[in-house]
Amino acid sequence: MSVIETCYRCGTRYDDEFRVRCDCGEPLWIDAEPTTAAWDERRDRLGMWRYESLLPIDRPAGVARAAGGTPLVRTSGLDDVAGGRVFVKDEGENPTGSYKDRGSAVAVPHAIDAGDDVVGTVSYGNMAISTAAHATSLDRECIVFVPEDISRVRLELIAQYEPTIIRVGGEYGALYEDALELSDWLPIAALVSDDPARISGYKTALFEICEEFAPETPDVIALPASSGGFASGIWLGICDLERAGVIDEPPRLYLVQTAASDPITRAFEDGSTDPTPLSPDETGETIAHSIGNPDPPSGARALAAVRDTGGAVVSVSDDEIRAAQRQFAVEGGFCVEPASATTLAGVSRLADRGEVSAEESVVLVPTGTGFKELGTGGTDVETETVHRTGLADRLESLLPRRAD
Amino acid sequence: MSVIETCYRCGTRYDDEFRVRCDCGEPLWIDAEPTTAAWDERRDRLGMWRYESLLPIDRPAGVARAAGGTPLVRTSGLDDVAGGRVFVKDEGENPTGSYKDRGSAVAVPHAIDAGDDVVGTVSYGNMAISTAAHATSLDRECIVFVPEDISRVRLELIAQYEPTIIRVGGEYGALYEDALELSDWLPIAALVSDDPARISGYKTALFEICEEFAPETPDVIALPASSGGFASGIWLGICDLERAGVIDEPPRLYLVQTAASDPITRAFEDGSTDPTPLSPDETGETIAHSIGNPDPPSGARALAAVRDTGGAVVSVSDDEIRAAQRQFAVEGGFCVEPASATTLAGVSRLADRGEVSAEESVVLVPTGTGFKELGTGGTDVETETVHRTGLADRLESLLPRRAD
Repeated sequence: MSVIETCYRCGTRYDDEFRVRCDCGEPLWIDAEPTTAAWDERRDRLGMWRYESLLPIDRPAGVARAAGGTPLVRTSGLDDVAGGRVFVKDEGENPTGSYKDRGSAVAVPHAIDAGDDVVGTVSYGNMAISTAAHATSLDRECIVFVPEDISRVRLELIAQYEPTIIRVGGEYGALYEDALELSDWLPIAALVSDDPARISGYKTALFEICEEFAPETPDVIALPASSGGFASGIWLGICDLERAGVIDEPPRLYLVQTAASDPITRAFEDGSTDPTPLSPDETGETIAHSIGNPDPPSGARALAAVRDTGGAVVSVSDDEIRAAQRQFAVEGGFCVEPASATTLAGVSRLADRGEVSAEESVVLVPTGTGFKELGTGGTDVETETVHRTGLADRLESLLPRRAD
Repeated sequence: MSVIETCYRCGTRYDDEFRVRCDCGEPLWIDAEPTTAAWDERRDRLGMWRYESLLPIDRPAGVARAAGGTPLVRTSGLDDVAGGRVFVKDEGENPTGSYKDRGSAVAVPHAIDAGDDVVGTVSYGNMAISTAAHATSLDRECIVFVPEDISRVRLELIAQYEPTIIRVGGEYGALYEDALELSDWLPIAALVSDDPARISGYKTALFEICEEFAPETPDVIALPASSGGFASGIWLGICDLERAGVIDEPPRLYLVQTAASDPITRAFEDGSTDPTPLSPDETGETIAHSIGNPDPPSGARALAAVRDTGGAVVSVSDDEIRAAQRQFAVEGGFCVEPASATTLAGVSRLADRGEVSAEESVVLVPTGTGFKELGTGGTDVETETVHRTGLADRLESLLPRRAD
């Protein structure tokens, strides 16, 4: 199998070797050479493999076949908050509960095809969980590099798939570069957040959204932003569809960061093309721990995606995230993790600034389920206790008597 | 909207009133009057609403649209354990993480159409979570009746959707009858486990399985069994397809119970048509707390389903459930709750008895995700700690050096 990679920034093309980054320093992505014919062909399959002809590998076996195919649901209960016509693309309905499965479904088999015995990943969250699940389902070893002080909850979520878990002492943020270097001379494929095969998998979320809206195109798509990898994949999907002549006007991409660590927002506001890495004293704690990367490897590409599509980047506070998470559940019926709730909080801010209008279609993409870390003491609960024999009386006082 | 209900046992038909149970005492289900035409019609839609013409309500708004459409994945890593060719139907990929969403998606809008102001449910697990989510997404009040000693984790999972939660003192098992009685004279629809509209929703899981296998039919389908409601829904789906002439030979239905509370298994082994309720001293603790109903309201119907299709009912121990849960994760990449892991453990037992053979197709249906209660201390975790600067040396000792 050979793939063609290109650099979104300098245009350099790589035909003969699989690399994560261009000589110019920016991350690469894989060219699908999309055609209208590829888009129009009959797609019977459910899940992300209905777009197999636009992906760099043949459909693999294993849990990869369960990835993608998530629902898109008109959710009018969130219109008032968001300031537009809201659609929720629920990426929590993936086999390991996050959009990461779309990337792992492509990147893990791709690494195996390339001859790597072992896959590794630098993550202590959804990417670690997903990579470990996809590796074990193909009977491959997986090594997960986590921070020394990882929480017990996170460890259990990852450990169920029985990868080798290495707690790494020292500066965890430096591991991205370390991992790429190690994979040059050891038989381990480091599936970092912007591995080009992973990014290809992410574009299927955009294809699904556009297929459901066709022949219309949504006005706005809002994503949480951390490494910038998911935004890159969505943008790659938009570029594919534009090149294939399937869409004319791209949806505006809005990225939302936690105010506790928002280098992409800062660069957007400054007019910079490249985010400046934040130092430890420029970042803080946040409930949105799935995001908050102080040095996003695909940050510059995410900025390019936003500017190319006429979108924006905004940051939101933990209080706004908490309120939005509650609204997803209570108005929409969706249990989303705090990082995903940022999408609603961010669009709400944009609507206040007049950047989203009431008649526009707004696709919020909650990227991960909230079920993974619920029940650990963070939710307020009100109950009352009634004995069974007193239930009728209590209910009668709560409800009107049935009319008929 | 009018629906026709029939009794699977005595054949009585009810045209004019919506009832949960027949005068003979058995639970009713809704007749879809399926035709080959209904089955063959073009179904573009994703999710369970591709079968709208075979359901008793029109497709509703809200989170109901995100229900169903779960993946079916060939999972050869489980073949050795199961003794057949395993396919996993991952019902954890539903909006609230369980198959209950298929039922709530039909039952909640159906109750609202019938004029009920409030929906109520007797559950402290997946059904409570699902019913509360679907009610709030349609802006309806929901009352959840839970046991007085419910765990904090369960409370938080339910409370996120902000239903009224009533802890009920006294015998919790008696609440099924109480709830039906209360709903007769109060404007509350009690969406119990075998509400006929709920059962209609469940049959879509069978339709999806059969559509993916068509023109073949799977040999075996294995489900966890508690109230017998899900088994009833799957059987209703089989009956619909047989009446429509779509399948000739039904899949054999195997139901699996926890040995800690297994009235349906006992009745199956005794040759009884009706399970005998178990007294408190006949039941025990189990990790499979989503199942284990000592007095299953649809138990007799579940037995009829098993016998009609040539299947069986088996019980498994907590040790077998733990081993099967690990195998789902490590061999399949699927995170399933203990109650769902029973399916693999049960089929393994059946294969040992010669009831399943190696060339047969076996669909395991894990009914709920394991993510809801993971991370609460139950998983063994092994890690090692390495400083960043020593990582290369450590990895080199773990892995062979890359050849090229």
